[in-house]
Amino acid sequence: MRELGISVLDELIGQLARLPGIGQKTAQRLAIFILKSSDGYAQELAQAILNVKQKTRLCKRCFNVAEDELCAICSDPRRDTHKICVVEDIVDVLAIEETHTYRGLYHVLGGVISPLAGVNPEDLNIRSLIERVKNEPIEEVILALNPSTEAETTIIYITKLLKDMEVQISRLASGVPMGAHLEYLDGATIGMAIQSRQKISKDT
Amino acid sequence: MRELGISVLDELIGQLARLPGIGQKTAQRLAIFILKSSDGYAQELAQAILNVKQKTRLCKRCFNVAEDELCAICSDPRRDTHKICVVEDIVDVLAIEETHTYRGLYHVLGGVISPLAGVNPEDLNIRSLIERVKNEPIEEVILALNPSTEAETTIIYITKLLKDMEVQISRLASGVPMGAHLEYLDGATIGMAIQSRQKISKDT
Repeated sequence: MRELGISVLDELIGQLARLPGIGQKTAQRLAIFILKSSDGYAQELAQAILNVKQKTRLCKRCFNVAEDELCAICSDPRRDTHKICVVEDIVDVLAIEETHTYRGLYHVLGGVISPLAGVNPEDLNIRSLIERVKNEPIEEVILALNPSTEAETTIIYITKLLKDMEVQISRLASGVPMGAHLEYLDGATIGMAIQSRQKISKDT
Repeated sequence: MRELGISVLDELIGQLARLPGIGQKTAQRLAIFILKSSDGYAQELAQAILNVKQKTRLCKRCFNVAEDELCAICSDPRRDTHKICVVEDIVDVLAIEETHTYRGLYHVLGGVISPLAGVNPEDLNIRSLIERVKNEPIEEVILALNPSTEAETTIIYITKLLKDMEVQISRLASGVPMGAHLEYLDGATIGMAIQSRQKISKDT
């Protein structure tokens, strides 16, 4: 790790390099850009960083990021309150919202069950999910977890807890992603796509 | 430009996206990382950004970035004060320092002469360079500008000003970079390398 011998610049480079996907070289380029930028930009950037920590919290209903007690989605009266989409992380809410294909509510688990990594069911927002299904007019719970062994465990765990309730449980379709070439896809995905193959109607 | 509907997060994404090489998608990833990071990290990062603006200035001798009146290089008694390496920008000082091949002083011009871009000689730290050559025990001025038409103009301009002074003027060698393949190099570089070809001694 090279040092430039200018302690404040080295400190900034060190801090920037802690960001994901930002290596030492990129951190240096960014630090020098900030050094040479207007005072205004540096202050706006620093303030924006502080604000995002100080002015946000977790939605008390769905654990999405929020500026008030409830997040923008939970407090939007146009959302379909009969569906909950269960995701691992806040970023997944953003990814699904971007598609504009889902108008229901969310529930952010905060991870998946992974005893090896020390994540047990009680570390996740699972109890609050069950409470919501009990108390809200939920008709469908869509489990939208990232495909992994831990996600499967989590899906089984949640499904068991919801078993006796009057609610439909579903999960994201597994299969070939749009634009993919079978040639380059992994075997597990192709196998899943064959297993979950969809009937084509002869009527159309 | 999609908005997440969380104003403080959108603001941070906007500010991060102004950094060079950081697109909207990367800015979003970084913003969410900061959102989810510890309060400590956000504060350290914000403080480092402010410090780099508040606690640095330009070296009054060579215009490199400095924490005091003189930069770390100008105030280092082990540097060879008989050589000045003239560069366009602070980043060039860092690039040359990293090589550990140069132990002299620097002079940061702040750009190159480019009338089309509205950069005239008086906008650059050229007068101060001439003063240094007059007043300091300089024996050699090494012009280490990035190859460009504007750099050529700047080299000619500075050379004319230094013409009558007792100082050696030199420039970086042009040629084939280490690790390059002639096959993929541009013609201008190969042409320059042929023109500036170096004699091989038969004695070794």
